[in-house]
Amino acid sequence: MRNIQILLEYDGSHYHGWQIQKNAISIQEVVERAIGAITNERVNLIGSSRTDSGVHARGQSANFLTQSRIPIDRFPYAINSKLPPDIRVIHACERPKDFHSRYDAVGKRYTYHVLNNAFGSALSYNRVWHVPQKLNIEDMKKAAEYFIGTHDFTSFRATGSSVQSSTRTIYASKLVYRDAEIILDIHGNGFLYNMVRIIMGTLVEIGMGKIHYGEIPRIIQARDRNMAGITAPAQGLYLEKVYYENS
Amino acid sequence: MRNIQILLEYDGSHYHGWQIQKNAISIQEVVERAIGAITNERVNLIGSSRTDSGVHARGQSANFLTQSRIPIDRFPYAINSKLPPDIRVIHACERPKDFHSRYDAVGKRYTYHVLNNAFGSALSYNRVWHVPQKLNIEDMKKAAEYFIGTHDFTSFRATGSSVQSSTRTIYASKLVYRDAEIILDIHGNGFLYNMVRIIMGTLVEIGMGKIHYGEIPRIIQARDRNMAGITAPAQGLYLEKVYYENS
Repeated sequence: MRNIQILLEYDGSHYHGWQIQKNAISIQEVVERAIGAITNERVNLIGSSRTDSGVHARGQSANFLTQSRIPIDRFPYAINSKLPPDIRVIHACERPKDFHSRYDAVGKRYTYHVLNNAFGSALSYNRVWHVPQKLNIEDMKKAAEYFIGTHDFTSFRATGSSVQSSTRTIYASKLVYRDAEIILDIHGNGFLYNMVRIIMGTLVEIGMGKIHYGEIPRIIQARDRNMAGITAPAQGLYLEKVYYENS
Repeated sequence: MRNIQILLEYDGSHYHGWQIQKNAISIQEVVERAIGAITNERVNLIGSSRTDSGVHARGQSANFLTQSRIPIDRFPYAINSKLPPDIRVIHACERPKDFHSRYDAVGKRYTYHVLNNAFGSALSYNRVWHVPQKLNIEDMKKAAEYFIGTHDFTSFRATGSSVQSSTRTIYASKLVYRDAEIILDIHGNGFLYNMVRIIMGTLVEIGMGKIHYGEIPRIIQARDRNMAGITAPAQGLYLEKVYYENS
């Protein structure tokens, strides 16, 4: 058996998220079917992250076991020939038999994109969160840096989520502004459910003056979802890269 | 009567071009209906360019006559409230009664976007022309500059088009390369039907080595569509700006 890791770019707009479910089309299902069509096997595709409906990826990582003898550098072309144009395999490599794209991930990088202009954009309406109000970008930049470090992020996770530990380490968290676009670039060892979207919702409320940027440490310490801001919508979120020990 | 000019941004992917037609949805029709819904009038919207199916715009110009008393700075918000998210009004201003967005245009600027990588892009598949072959970018850059000046562009217009004069003046024509994207930025006093797409198709054939860049003057002189390259697909083309005497 070969263990093949693939990297995927997708536009999440027309899918009900990554994970297979009944009565709704998922990215996992579409990619599994494409791999099945070229290998004549029924494969189980393991994704590093169960991205939500509407969330995009530039570097989702996934792996599957196969007996196919397709040369590794032909896999992207072969799978892409069976995929719709809003999902692309952009890389493939062979991994040891016990490699698991979810359990072995040691870090992830996400970006979140806000468009801060009057009328939004016809060309990126499902790729950004359009916020027309005037925002204090400098306050948002200062606030973004408070997330760096090891913290219990209970205040920044969707209520009702079941993961046991809510402690995560954020290695980098930086907000940049260019051409009316506000981009949060955040890298950590893992993220709780909706964590990046709640961080961005909170940053936007800081930009609006509803929350003071210096409040972030107190909001983290409170371990109370009600202390943080709103959950930013899915369509501004991009899974950029998944990190493993050897890459 | 007031004569209102609006600037439009749109994603042309889901429309059968600008111009109203039977049995197919056009951008003109959707915008006319939106204006009608806020003015309670039946308006005739005149566009500067009849962009084809799949072609995008960042600055299409259009105008309509109305008796509405809506303040001019409220027009974009009002019309946008009745438009789908892939069409946005980004500006509105009042013009003299005889202003005509098509006849009065004195120049237009287009860009054409080619994505030159192995696998294309899930996030921009209907916004670029994906060309996977290796291209000689330097040759394409040299070729792009040959279009500058006043020429008979018969070789670069779709056969069967009905416009009488085929002479146009190109003020600027520049090709740039960044992050695997090749962008042609071209500005002239007007363009023949499919002219930018045939220019781009020819440039890509030059990049592939099928045509030598120094051949452009001879291809122009031939006044023969068969001498130029293929017509690049619609989805890479963007109408960026329309110029008038006073703007």
